[in-house]
Amino acid sequence: MSSLRIIPLGGLGEIGRNMLVVEYDGELLIVDAGIMFPDNDMLGIDVVIPDMSYVFERADRVRAIIITHGHEDHIGALPYLLEQVSAPLYATKLTLGLIKVKLPAAFGHSEDLRVIDPDERLALGPFGVSFFRVSHSIPDGVGLAIETPVGLVVHSGDFKFDHSPINGQRTEFTKLAQLGGQGVRLLLSDSTNAESPGYTPSEAELAKTLARVFGSSQGRVIVATFASNISRIQQVIDTSRLHGRRVAIVGRSMLQNVRVARELGYLQVEDDDLVPVDQVEHLPEERVTLICTGSQGEPTSALVRLGQSSLRSVSITPGDTVIVSASPIPGNEEYVNRTLDNLFRLGARVFYDEVLDVHVSGHASQEEQKMLINLVQPEFFVPIHGEYRHLVLHRELAQRCDIPRENTFLLETGDVLELDGQGARVVEHVSGERVLVDRHGLAEADNGVMQHRTEMATNGVLVAVVLINKYTGSLLGEPHLEMRGFCYPSEEETVRRRAQEAIAQVVARGGTRVELLARLEQELARVAHGETGRRPVIIPVLSKT
Amino acid sequence: MSSLRIIPLGGLGEIGRNMLVVEYDGELLIVDAGIMFPDNDMLGIDVVIPDMSYVFERADRVRAIIITHGHEDHIGALPYLLEQVSAPLYATKLTLGLIKVKLPAAFGHSEDLRVIDPDERLALGPFGVSFFRVSHSIPDGVGLAIETPVGLVVHSGDFKFDHSPINGQRTEFTKLAQLGGQGVRLLLSDSTNAESPGYTPSEAELAKTLARVFGSSQGRVIVATFASNISRIQQVIDTSRLHGRRVAIVGRSMLQNVRVARELGYLQVEDDDLVPVDQVEHLPEERVTLICTGSQGEPTSALVRLGQSSLRSVSITPGDTVIVSASPIPGNEEYVNRTLDNLFRLGARVFYDEVLDVHVSGHASQEEQKMLINLVQPEFFVPIHGEYRHLVLHRELAQRCDIPRENTFLLETGDVLELDGQGARVVEHVSGERVLVDRHGLAEADNGVMQHRTEMATNGVLVAVVLINKYTGSLLGEPHLEMRGFCYPSEEETVRRRAQEAIAQVVARGGTRVELLARLEQELARVAHGETGRRPVIIPVLSKT
Repeated sequence: MSSLRIIPLGGLGEIGRNMLVVEYDGELLIVDAGIMFPDNDMLGIDVVIPDMSYVFERADRVRAIIITHGHEDHIGALPYLLEQVSAPLYATKLTLGLIKVKLPAAFGHSEDLRVIDPDERLALGPFGVSFFRVSHSIPDGVGLAIETPVGLVVHSGDFKFDHSPINGQRTEFTKLAQLGGQGVRLLLSDSTNAESPGYTPSEAELAKTLARVFGSSQGRVIVATFASNISRIQQVIDTSRLHGRRVAIVGRSMLQNVRVARELGYLQVEDDDLVPVDQVEHLPEERVTLICTGSQGEPTSALVRLGQSSLRSVSITPGDTVIVSASPIPGNEEYVNRTLDNLFRLGARVFYDEVLDVHVSGHASQEEQKMLINLVQPEFFVPIHGEYRHLVLHRELAQRCDIPRENTFLLETGDVLELDGQGARVVEHVSGERVLVDRHGLAEADNGVMQHRTEMATNGVLVAVVLINKYTGSLLGEPHLEMRGFCYPSEEETVRRRAQEAIAQVVARGGTRVELLARLEQELARVAHGETGRRPVIIPVLSKT
Repeated sequence: MSSLRIIPLGGLGEIGRNMLVVEYDGELLIVDAGIMFPDNDMLGIDVVIPDMSYVFERADRVRAIIITHGHEDHIGALPYLLEQVSAPLYATKLTLGLIKVKLPAAFGHSEDLRVIDPDERLALGPFGVSFFRVSHSIPDGVGLAIETPVGLVVHSGDFKFDHSPINGQRTEFTKLAQLGGQGVRLLLSDSTNAESPGYTPSEAELAKTLARVFGSSQGRVIVATFASNISRIQQVIDTSRLHGRRVAIVGRSMLQNVRVARELGYLQVEDDDLVPVDQVEHLPEERVTLICTGSQGEPTSALVRLGQSSLRSVSITPGDTVIVSASPIPGNEEYVNRTLDNLFRLGARVFYDEVLDVHVSGHASQEEQKMLINLVQPEFFVPIHGEYRHLVLHRELAQRCDIPRENTFLLETGDVLELDGQGARVVEHVSGERVLVDRHGLAEADNGVMQHRTEMATNGVLVAVVLINKYTGSLLGEPHLEMRGFCYPSEEETVRRRAQEAIAQVVARGGTRVELLARLEQELARVAHGETGRRPVIIPVLSKT
């Protein structure tokens, strides 16, 4: 009998770019294909995606691509996947709607899109896949129960246990308990909030806070949140209606998501609830709510432009109230704080995570993570979706739920876990590399592009163009020195003089072209560091005429 | 009668580089001269300091420089100040000790250092300055009561109300109440924690947590904290002694501070409590504590190198316990998280802010900020030391303490507040510019160094060296193209070909040198953007031979 292979291609030991391969007998299921936001030191990079070469090499054996929910870190890499894999893509109604509107580029290649009903069962080669609904910060999310020849594998998706979700979709306890009763061999579960004790509050808890803030607001109310958080948007619209306010949606992705969610019946909004943003100035301020993007301080987002008074249609005035209904993703704090300060400077009342509970997470906290483990009672446990410390902490929770430590596996992206009748073990490692993408496509790093950017970012560049008489080998005129981002004005003259001297000495010494270039680089680096303490990228150009 | 002028040169609308000028009749007092850490987008910059030109232009009228405590954001800019101002410098014993050891460079220029006794009163021209002790995350801090011809001004320094501080130095209520009784015209107070409700816990609260973690540790215990947090270091040493552990101090600044604090009597340590780090490997693991730098994930710090297994003298093994006893300063989260993950990967138990209360702040929370206002009962109030939102929130607290709104002033760095018998008002604005400093000195930004770095950081550079026959104006050979951080390998050939074509066309069209350079830059930018979507810095070099 073959064994089952579980291969995370992203999302383990990192937050984002979630992607998992389930393989049996050479046949593959793909679960999710997401992006990750670049670290602050990935210069010029827009997003990070999984290395999919393992999948691409087996593209004709992919039975299906299954998407758990419509967040970017689960769907954003689909255009890259679908470029080389033409398997059917399964997702729930809203998820598929969001994929279609957000990733139109993905569908030049594959049109085999299939809406799943979370109560159906799919037969996909050696796999049988059923679903359980989960509550999360976007509606219509699911987890997976995958029947395989070596037993049942449960994948939590992103989940929390919300007993009063805004959209009515609770995490399906009953199905989970039934799965537990059938005997689950392996549970893969969301670790994002493994640092948080207790239970994550219900989305409905926010209603009271919103009512309080709206009730005390005389001017406009501006709410920034994630464009995908349909339930949050629903709550803000409901609260606005109760307070006699009409709602303007601001920001491209926010408008897109609201349109799709309305069309598909996931957002209960009357035309009368809404008002186009360019008509907001004609309404009394106390009759207006804005819902906008920018809760992460993204440079071109609506909230950031409101803070800079650079949004054409509307501007913040004293008396306005701003609610930033989100937590900063680590790495974004500086941008968020700058935006908050700008809003305060404009005289707005501003409510945000630090001063009021204006956000609840969409992920399970420790007690919910334990509840899932106890419902499913798996033989083996793998924490997924989290930085390394989250995975470690989640494994500790599993041990407290009586999963033996040797039955828990701390995988990182690229590790291959094998499961068969005997047990489970990590057998090998495939590439878990971070593939960097900029707006033009994949960023190939092998010519040192990233490293040069980093060096130039802190030290600048020094170009030296040296002309040599091809017969005599002597300098022709004075070398051209060009600097960018390197010297301050007061240093420039000395650096130029010393560089000229160094070049003259190198040329006088003579040598082959290669030798001359190497010596020029070395000597110019020495001069640069000696005079300024900095190490610019040195570009020597040698021309013999 | 003249009026008093209060001029913050740093620290208002920002965290760090605290510096305040108090001026009467042309005579100046300087309170603090600190650095700020650069934002993540200040490329190649090490620290940020105040623009001191206002002080430099009045250097001979500076009566005194008074330092409230020994943190970098209050003393770090002294070398730049003392370069042009030779007034006497007043600080308490420990503060002066730290200044001397940290800033030896500062004292080529001024040797007029005066230790203050917090119970004395200084007569400084038109000013009389007395002090009140404050508890903070470094010992020997003070706040100031400045008598001026227009009344009493109180400056809080950085403070909290700690009723059981480790070093026994409580914030002096009695003096504050007496000042309040005498009638205070203006209070300037620390806003850092204006977002935090309630009271900041006492430093002593940590003792229980430390005892619990030490009690459950079998291997070594590694504690990372700020090098200046002498009380924290004292607690870790005390706990270690109780648990039969000897302490190794790791990291240059930590060693320096411990030495100074011991010499001056601010740290109670026996020689026997300590062990040199290179002898740690000879002791049983359960007999060892390390105290080290790196709680902010600073790239070359001891904790970061421990996480990378690159510290020579000691390395982390499973069973070791790490306590990161600090909160990440906004902007440092990514670095801190990477370090935590690396420590987890090495198998350490890791305790940090998110999972256990292993840190308490040194700044007053809201109730303490209100308590200070109520003790001092000032006529006017100016929140200092905080980003803009902190200042706004602190002003709201003052209003709740019955300071009329019109008597509170939201100053930002550079604003000049005038106070006289009639009242107070903002009268003008002097430069509050951020002066950027790298390891070589002041970063002069006027030749676009910063902007070029930013551009090159995301888009790289394209250098084109074009040789032209000076008689015919035609191209000599093929232009040299050099790229760094710009093209990926797959794009390079096309970019080169198109750039060559563009150069040939520009040269064929002819023109003056200036015209040719401008057209080359323009056309190469067009090619680069058209082929790659990126906008590299273009450096055209034209040589006629």
